[in-house]
Amino acid sequence: MRVRNKPWAKDYMAEHTDQMVVEPEPLMGKWQSRFPKEQPLYVEIGTGKGQFIVEMAKAHPENNFIGIEIQMSVIAAALKKVVASGLTNIQLVHTDGEAINTFFAQGEVAGLYLNFSDPWPKTRHIKRRLTSPVFLAHYADVLPAGGSVQFKTDNRGLFEYSLGSLNNFGMVFDGVWLDLHAATDGVEDIQTEYEQKFSSKGPIYQVIAHFPEDK
Amino acid sequence: MRVRNKPWAKDYMAEHTDQMVVEPEPLMGKWQSRFPKEQPLYVEIGTGKGQFIVEMAKAHPENNFIGIEIQMSVIAAALKKVVASGLTNIQLVHTDGEAINTFFAQGEVAGLYLNFSDPWPKTRHIKRRLTSPVFLAHYADVLPAGGSVQFKTDNRGLFEYSLGSLNNFGMVFDGVWLDLHAATDGVEDIQTEYEQKFSSKGPIYQVIAHFPEDK
Repeated sequence: MRVRNKPWAKDYMAEHTDQMVVEPEPLMGKWQSRFPKEQPLYVEIGTGKGQFIVEMAKAHPENNFIGIEIQMSVIAAALKKVVASGLTNIQLVHTDGEAINTFFAQGEVAGLYLNFSDPWPKTRHIKRRLTSPVFLAHYADVLPAGGSVQFKTDNRGLFEYSLGSLNNFGMVFDGVWLDLHAATDGVEDIQTEYEQKFSSKGPIYQVIAHFPEDK
Repeated sequence: MRVRNKPWAKDYMAEHTDQMVVEPEPLMGKWQSRFPKEQPLYVEIGTGKGQFIVEMAKAHPENNFIGIEIQMSVIAAALKKVVASGLTNIQLVHTDGEAINTFFAQGEVAGLYLNFSDPWPKTRHIKRRLTSPVFLAHYADVLPAGGSVQFKTDNRGLFEYSLGSLNNFGMVFDGVWLDLHAATDGVEDIQTEYEQKFSSKGPIYQVIAHFPEDK
């Protein structure tokens, strides 16, 4: 996502260190200390402007949430939403989500969300896709045995690739949706900003899958 | 597929026992005897009017093909195509494809095709779907270790279910297509009559998956 530089972003983030982490590594194994209540922790990689993770935190006070985003001007917008919400079960982390296994301990994360990740359509960029085997191995490192990943996209090629990649990695599908907004099975669908804006152009795909218990 | 009764069908089939089998069980383990050349055998379950399997036999003289269909008036139409084609690497079987493991020996079938199977949309009919675990177990019985299944449908609900079912059964995905007719990867797409007629209404989904080597 390209966004204009926002000069206020850095200062705004510095003023809200209670809800924003910029140095995640020292918190490895201690993330629950950032929340008033110790409860299952769900993490979104690439949280963008934050609508998804803020709405999730609102809908699920029984869980803690972390949104990770590398782009400063974008995560600053997410921080505004977090501050405005008054929620205490959500934290933002300004860093590269790809290195997730360098700042979460094994089993520290109950579940992961990947929403509308960069499709990296060229074959030579396959390894950069957030559902490629290298990243799946990172996710397995931070989830407990049987931990799950929820992946949502409107990009057909990326979804085709991801179904194969997750399957080939040995992940077990809990559900597949090929037109999420037309689903009638009552699946929860909290939407991202991007999803609300662009979903009329085509179907939203989603898969929820877990790592095997005996990994 | 509902079709009108065709009084000529039974006689026509009786006249072409060289390309049509009505009693498959005695041929278990001996299907190659029905073909001039011993070569890998590919089987379509629910072959309908036969366009797919006849075109496959034309395109792949290096393989043998069998189309299985339970409806007499439909398979009679397929038989007409087979006879007209003059091909010798194709046989039709008038029986219930669900019982495939009662007339093929383990490893006798190199690969299976399921095209536009009945979606059986009601939950209480899940077991009748050709991608349900009971049938997958039958397929594993007739394929060699690592043998593959190619499944194609235009039914979104059936495809969502099937991706989960194949994955949960431990099958390994070789490829997933969410709009087969828009694919640019050069995947072979020999179409059924139904597919040609109805594909303009929505995408054609396809998955190719194999049973694990160590099953």
